Amino acid sequence: MPAINLAIVGVGKIVRDQHLPAVAANAGYRLVAAASRHGKVDGIDNFTSIDEMLAAVPAIQAVSLCMPPQYRYEAAAKALAAGKHVFLEKPPGATLSEVEDLASMAAARGLTLFASWHSRYAPAVEAAREFLAGTRIRSMRVAWKEDVRQWHPNQEWIWRAGGLGVFDPGINALSIVTRILPRPVFATAATLEFPGNREAPIAASITLTDAQGLDLVAEFDWRQTGRQQWDIVARTDAGEMVLSEGGARLSVDGVRVHDEPEQEYPMLYRRFAELVASGRSDVDTAPLRHVADAFMLGRRTVVDDFHD
Amino acid sequence: MPAINLAIVGVGKIVRDQHLPAVAANAGYRLVAAASRHGKVDGIDNFTSIDEMLAAVPAIQAVSLCMPPQYRYEAAAKALAAGKHVFLEKPPGATLSEVEDLASMAAARGLTLFASWHSRYAPAVEAAREFLAGTRIRSMRVAWKEDVRQWHPNQEWIWRAGGLGVFDPGINALSIVTRILPRPVFATAATLEFPGNREAPIAASITLTDAQGLDLVAEFDWRQTGRQQWDIVARTDAGEMVLSEGGARLSVDGVRVHDEPEQEYPMLYRRFAELVASGRSDVDTAPLRHVADAFMLGRRTVVDDFHD
Repeated sequence: MPAINLAIVGVGKIVRDQHLPAVAANAGYRLVAAASRHGKVDGIDNFTSIDEMLAAVPAIQAVSLCMPPQYRYEAAAKALAAGKHVFLEKPPGATLSEVEDLASMAAARGLTLFASWHSRYAPAVEAAREFLAGTRIRSMRVAWKEDVRQWHPNQEWIWRAGGLGVFDPGINALSIVTRILPRPVFATAATLEFPGNREAPIAASITLTDAQGLDLVAEFDWRQTGRQQWDIVARTDAGEMVLSEGGARLSVDGVRVHDEPEQEYPMLYRRFAELVASGRSDVDTAPLRHVADAFMLGRRTVVDDFHD
Repeated sequence: MPAINLAIVGVGKIVRDQHLPAVAANAGYRLVAAASRHGKVDGIDNFTSIDEMLAAVPAIQAVSLCMPPQYRYEAAAKALAAGKHVFLEKPPGATLSEVEDLASMAAARGLTLFASWHSRYAPAVEAAREFLAGTRIRSMRVAWKEDVRQWHPNQEWIWRAGGLGVFDPGINALSIVTRILPRPVFATAATLEFPGNREAPIAASITLTDAQGLDLVAEFDWRQTGRQQWDIVARTDAGEMVLSEGGARLSVDGVRVHDEPEQEYPMLYRRFAELVASGRSDVDTAPLRHVADAFMLGRRTVVDDFHD
């Protein structure tokens, strides 16, 4: 299979940290261009807009869209209209409805649309899923607590309406939870804490359940200093399962059962190449839907102003 | 076709104003029972919970669920588990995810689930849809402005988290808009105004567009005194279309082209009977999805306290 001529749009931290190394290590891709208002990728053609790039480099077959979600629909629609396959960073858009629209456009044109959820490819996620499938879950507690100043320093877009705030990392937890649980879940209550000077929440708590009455609470907090926490703990008939480090490690009753090196973005790009090769799309909006549900259902409280 | 043995759950204002007259006038239904914490229906067996009712009246074939949306999932799940077809008042639930779950349950059991949107059955909605299909829309403005004290007096649930606030009427407008427009739309910005003492918005403005760049703004306000307004105005190449009175009347360039008596709930019950007879479901969550998107994307402002 010949390599896919790939372009990347929105060259920021996640592109440099994850996309470029994953693409460079995968012989199935040839990175041919990038477009970004500010960032550049060394050694390839760079443009300041996707329009210029699509016009100048017709050899592009697929694009990875990594700009903030508020700007993703327009770029995706242009890429699909130009006949390109599209890889969407998470979250796949600023609204569920725009993602539905993109999925329809891709289907109508026979193109691949991939709504990527990198945390689902964390090393121990599949092992956790298999463990939970074989037992009864008594309760599940999700704690995604990190220091926003460390992980999103001066990222203004993330605090603006549509930027999701603490749900930007929280949606990673939801992408794992919706993968490892045996049945669909839905929120029954939520609390969202908004700093007085920001449009997006700095902390959130969601109570969820499923058709069997699952006891599930997810807590997201961006004010965590000291130990950073990305843990999912399930009390089950087969013992206490701890999926920690954002899905990287799995232990049951304190015994480590799974611990492998992290390969999330390499796996995402392998998955995208498979989808392109087989002419399929993968657009699961469930994690974003749970965020939208939490916003719709949630009680809002105003907390201390936040300054970077 | 024998009449459907129907039960109604959640006997409040909408049941007395709309459901009971529509069911009484339709020979396709026999109302056999009702369940409600407080309300009663004369002349049939009344219960205080759906559990009691389902246990006591096995002849029930279908239930209409009219309690506040925050309580609807549990009742719907019980009804489906008991093998009953389900009619959901609008909005179909407090979250998108719970409605998806109910749709899966209904499909797995071969039962009918009907997410009803009564405003789609307003007299002039189909005429508006046909008019718009034959022209180019330059812009659309939606104004749903009513006095909450007149239409929802002392309905505390509507102000609680999950009660949707001004989106409770606003979702009717969205149910019409998503029916009459030629293409799917999505929100690009929203503003939600929350009274300082309430958990749900009293006013909202949503800017939407579609894949062709449609110029669409919807404004919902519960503080309207004097003339009540439920209007959709479209400037088109074929003139100015005004769909007014909540979908009841249609005029183009000031000339009335459609004006018929309102038949929303009778048509909903005819539709439900057809779905049951043909073994199908009708669960379009688009209006609720737009509300969830507006909550997720929207900028929140705090306005004057509201007291009934």
